[in-house]
Amino acid sequence: MTTAKSQRTVFFVSDRTGITAELLGKTLLTQFPGIEFLKRTFPFVDSVDKAKSVLAKIHDTAQKEDRPPIVFSTLINEEVRAALASDRALIIDLFADFIRRLETELGQESTHALGLSHGIGDELVYQKRMDALNYTLSHDDGMHTANYDRADVILVGVSRTGKTPTCLYLAMQYGICAANYPLTPDDFNELALPKPLQPQRAKLHGLTIQPERLAKIRHERKPESRYASLENCQGEIRAAEALLRQAHIPILDTSSMSIEEIAISILYGTGLIKRVKT
Amino acid sequence: MTTAKSQRTVFFVSDRTGITAELLGKTLLTQFPGIEFLKRTFPFVDSVDKAKSVLAKIHDTAQKEDRPPIVFSTLINEEVRAALASDRALIIDLFADFIRRLETELGQESTHALGLSHGIGDELVYQKRMDALNYTLSHDDGMHTANYDRADVILVGVSRTGKTPTCLYLAMQYGICAANYPLTPDDFNELALPKPLQPQRAKLHGLTIQPERLAKIRHERKPESRYASLENCQGEIRAAEALLRQAHIPILDTSSMSIEEIAISILYGTGLIKRVKT
Repeated sequence: MTTAKSQRTVFFVSDRTGITAELLGKTLLTQFPGIEFLKRTFPFVDSVDKAKSVLAKIHDTAQKEDRPPIVFSTLINEEVRAALASDRALIIDLFADFIRRLETELGQESTHALGLSHGIGDELVYQKRMDALNYTLSHDDGMHTANYDRADVILVGVSRTGKTPTCLYLAMQYGICAANYPLTPDDFNELALPKPLQPQRAKLHGLTIQPERLAKIRHERKPESRYASLENCQGEIRAAEALLRQAHIPILDTSSMSIEEIAISILYGTGLIKRVKT
Repeated sequence: MTTAKSQRTVFFVSDRTGITAELLGKTLLTQFPGIEFLKRTFPFVDSVDKAKSVLAKIHDTAQKEDRPPIVFSTLINEEVRAALASDRALIIDLFADFIRRLETELGQESTHALGLSHGIGDELVYQKRMDALNYTLSHDDGMHTANYDRADVILVGVSRTGKTPTCLYLAMQYGICAANYPLTPDDFNELALPKPLQPQRAKLHGLTIQPERLAKIRHERKPESRYASLENCQGEIRAAEALLRQAHIPILDTSSMSIEEIAISILYGTGLIKRVKT
């Protein structure tokens, strides 16, 4: 039983990128904040020899630290998986049990084929992601509004509410053509949507943020500027929210949200997921 | 036992974004290519009531299709998790067993706290990702080479080898300041690195690609152009590879790789992971 902050070494082992192993493993480890985890990732472990070489490192660590390392593995090939077996580590195999239960329920054997996630996989799906990313990069920050017919979603808000990173995430992960349009003081003179946005009402989604948080973010970029002052942030946000509400555009407060959370909220909160097939 | 391509409905249920549930679930499902999976994701299921409402949908589906849906869930709260229990679905709980095994090995109870992955989490780590993304966006395609001292890595290659999406992925997922510099015919007149790259040799990583694949990608953007012609692609690639080899820069062939695979190869193949702490 540990009381002081202790250390444990964790291995992530995968036959492909290791992204899945790291993601689920790190998610599980966040549940143990009292322990400091030293993380080592081994991607592309796709042969028995490579597995043996990782196993040797695991055993070295077990001996040096005098306790079992934690190992998260996603290995499809059974021989490679067998080569990593050890009773000197806690091996959490993220596939083995689940694959077996799925085989039973689905009445099929699994293919044991590698590289089916995070590879190019379906060429068309991959191409769609790359196309969306190109679209998003060239429709950042109010650029090329003439092409808004091709957009799946257009994020609207004042500077530094999270529009650009959210658009990039939606494009890269979901193949969504996501444009964004910054609201600036020029737009607040009349209480109407800027012209390029008016025909696109159904695709618009507003982002807002607490003024204190916005001032902090803007101060990091332009310290002591009027742009970053709390008073200015309050004014811009008040005006932007009024404009968006008047136009019946949904608004999301991003103050305590990560870009993943913003993206998922927009994807599932607005029917976007039904308009685009991801 | 199914022989023709059959359909199964799959639910992804999470108390936060659902990214982990979708990722591991979809990875497992790629092992069963004979089946078409209809996917429904329910993020932010963070109360017993919300879980009950999802369970009602699961039971509806079970009744309509006359067989159990597959459910991948990542629910931390035990009451919420209990509210989703059902014997009319195959429920694959991606946390329950693993958390218990970790508790035993680590000698600690887990916190059962929500939102620890894909949330903002550690503010400093999140800020590093956002800063890296800003850096990467403003150092795309050879821009602002004067700031290369701040770069963690600089990708070099001819147009359309995957430099920009890989840089964005490294920044967004790993907080890596990734710049990229395009090699153009102007650079091939002398067999030397372009001036802005010369002081940065240790950070450079070359990307290359098969000429046929490059011609295909370029044709989609600029059909029938000299830029996209196979002959031109062959010439550019030959010259770029000669230049990079001469300068002892590592080169990765991205022809059959996804951006995730390119990013991970660079991260773990070159010592970058040791230079930057992710």
